[in-house]
Amino acid sequence: MNVQTNLPAARDKLLFTPGPLTTSLSVKQAMLHDAGSWHYEFNAKVNWVRAKILEIAELSIEAGWEAILMQGSGTFGVEAVFATCVPPNGKVMVLANGAYGERIVLMLQRLKIEHVVLRTQENAPIDPEALDRALAASKSITHVCIVHCETTTGILNPVAEVGRVVKQHGRAYVVDAMSSFGAMPIDFAGAGIDFLISSANKCIEGVPGFSFVICRRNVLLACDGYARSLSLDLLDQLKGFEKNGQFRYTPPTHAILAFEQALLELDLEGGVAGRGARYRANHETLVNGMQQLGFRPYLDHAVQSHIITSFHYPENGKFTFGAFYRGLSEKGFIIYPGKISQANTFRIGSIGRIFPGDIEGLLSAVRIVLGEMGLD
Amino acid sequence: MNVQTNLPAARDKLLFTPGPLTTSLSVKQAMLHDAGSWHYEFNAKVNWVRAKILEIAELSIEAGWEAILMQGSGTFGVEAVFATCVPPNGKVMVLANGAYGERIVLMLQRLKIEHVVLRTQENAPIDPEALDRALAASKSITHVCIVHCETTTGILNPVAEVGRVVKQHGRAYVVDAMSSFGAMPIDFAGAGIDFLISSANKCIEGVPGFSFVICRRNVLLACDGYARSLSLDLLDQLKGFEKNGQFRYTPPTHAILAFEQALLELDLEGGVAGRGARYRANHETLVNGMQQLGFRPYLDHAVQSHIITSFHYPENGKFTFGAFYRGLSEKGFIIYPGKISQANTFRIGSIGRIFPGDIEGLLSAVRIVLGEMGLD
Repeated sequence: MNVQTNLPAARDKLLFTPGPLTTSLSVKQAMLHDAGSWHYEFNAKVNWVRAKILEIAELSIEAGWEAILMQGSGTFGVEAVFATCVPPNGKVMVLANGAYGERIVLMLQRLKIEHVVLRTQENAPIDPEALDRALAASKSITHVCIVHCETTTGILNPVAEVGRVVKQHGRAYVVDAMSSFGAMPIDFAGAGIDFLISSANKCIEGVPGFSFVICRRNVLLACDGYARSLSLDLLDQLKGFEKNGQFRYTPPTHAILAFEQALLELDLEGGVAGRGARYRANHETLVNGMQQLGFRPYLDHAVQSHIITSFHYPENGKFTFGAFYRGLSEKGFIIYPGKISQANTFRIGSIGRIFPGDIEGLLSAVRIVLGEMGLD
Repeated sequence: MNVQTNLPAARDKLLFTPGPLTTSLSVKQAMLHDAGSWHYEFNAKVNWVRAKILEIAELSIEAGWEAILMQGSGTFGVEAVFATCVPPNGKVMVLANGAYGERIVLMLQRLKIEHVVLRTQENAPIDPEALDRALAASKSITHVCIVHCETTTGILNPVAEVGRVVKQHGRAYVVDAMSSFGAMPIDFAGAGIDFLISSANKCIEGVPGFSFVICRRNVLLACDGYARSLSLDLLDQLKGFEKNGQFRYTPPTHAILAFEQALLELDLEGGVAGRGARYRANHETLVNGMQQLGFRPYLDHAVQSHIITSFHYPENGKFTFGAFYRGLSEKGFIIYPGKISQANTFRIGSIGRIFPGDIEGLLSAVRIVLGEMGLD
């Protein structure tokens, strides 16, 4: 019997990636409107979104914090922080154990900002004691930066412990929390965070189009005159919001409308705690199921986040990632390739509008595809 | 009788602005899907979009051209060109007769790129003969840039005539065609254009989230090593597309899906000629109607584009822009404030998914609001 198989699917493929993610239909439906970027009704939404981000972080404008939206992907937000906030004679220490730390190094090279890199292996968290020694030895370092959850592997770095060392040495602290903010509590004051960057299309479950920076207002205001870019000038962006409630340059209006809805839905789920609990359930269902299928996680359990998980390729010559990926895609599941230099891995994300039942569906598909590849 | 007036409106307010614009429902509905940014199906769409942009420009990869998408607003695309393509010892001449020319000046200041500015009045197009004299007098200028349609006023600058002068002097030519591309034919070869920047949410009628740069491949490839930013590195962005079909960093996936649909709808309207004809009809309906209501356009007819039109405030003390704007907004029409330094004006755009009948609706609302303000 011939079955017509090139008909459109009844639903989108589910995304088990580090983002863009599967979002709720209601978040996407919020984009069925055109908003004027100069209009007061839209500006009120932007203002609400900025305040709500601080609320999620358990911070406030009154306590000296700001949330600043920046057009572009998360990388644009990270670059905006360095391009705006490092003085001409500043020096940045990058704590790196994956591709996103290395991306910051590349960024600093292009911006011609002096920097040093303290690297650990991709499967080892950043070591606060090594940082302590390095900062004691180098008084010229003005800023230290870290990636909270390195989605290269899925490893979780000790943001709070590292932050305490940074502050003992009186340096500024920048945290790339792209894939963790919204699903893990972050103690800004306790960790001494000056700048934290995240993105609309991660754990808040909005759509891509902008990033946001949470920062101490007085630290940012002290950076006047440093900006190395107009588009990525974070201080000028704040001044724009304060002048008339507007983005300086055309905002991604539809992505903002989607984000407003996503923030409401985060509340409905019980905020950061509720969202984190679902992602943890997703992750545990995934790891248990994959282990039963014979897959080995790349990271030790103790350092593994519940955001994304790297798995070793099976030790079998019949396995190719290309065939595995396509097989899962044809069944409606999109996974992610590996990004690790020392090992052959692929990655599966636990974040976005997916539930443990969806993970079970993915696991069934993995079992079937392995069979199709002669690997059962 | 009391009528409940805080119910949601049956439709969005129509946007008579320079963008973000009113888009078709089908363009917005294209965003009701989540796409994986690493996935081959999405990458095929990105590739199609890039080729289609060249087709609209009547250019091709075979003839040596590239279309490169860049996250962020149009300003990010303009800055990407300068940040990537001006050599360390380069010098840019900015031709300025409005806020967008001045924004480029600001951008070059932040990027620490040497530059000079040749200004004309905001109501006078750029003068090719003055440029000819300036280039003859300054051999150190490597790049000349112009804004095609300055939406500060709505003035149209002579891109082709200026380009011929630029090329006679052997300099590189950068055109900001943000608000004109897609609704006006542009002769790239005849005008000697090396880089042209436009944006998703202008005359193609997509939603905001990215800009695009059309450029000569060999000119861009010669810029290796100049980039002053990682996020805004245009050459690296091209290399990313060529390596694996992907954006280097998270793309605004939903905005790309909307743009794909918008490009199909541009074809349905008869391409650039058809779209331009509708915008011209919108513009003529607007100007005739506003003149009948006693408003005077700011620009001479000969230099006025059909993209956006500046009108003088009525010479009557009862008129305030705030009340006028709010009155129109309450009736479902969003206009735009003025941006001109020497005159009190407001602006009304003719672009987006609006038709002459919508302009008639706006004109009726203007008449009523003037009456409410005691100005009839």
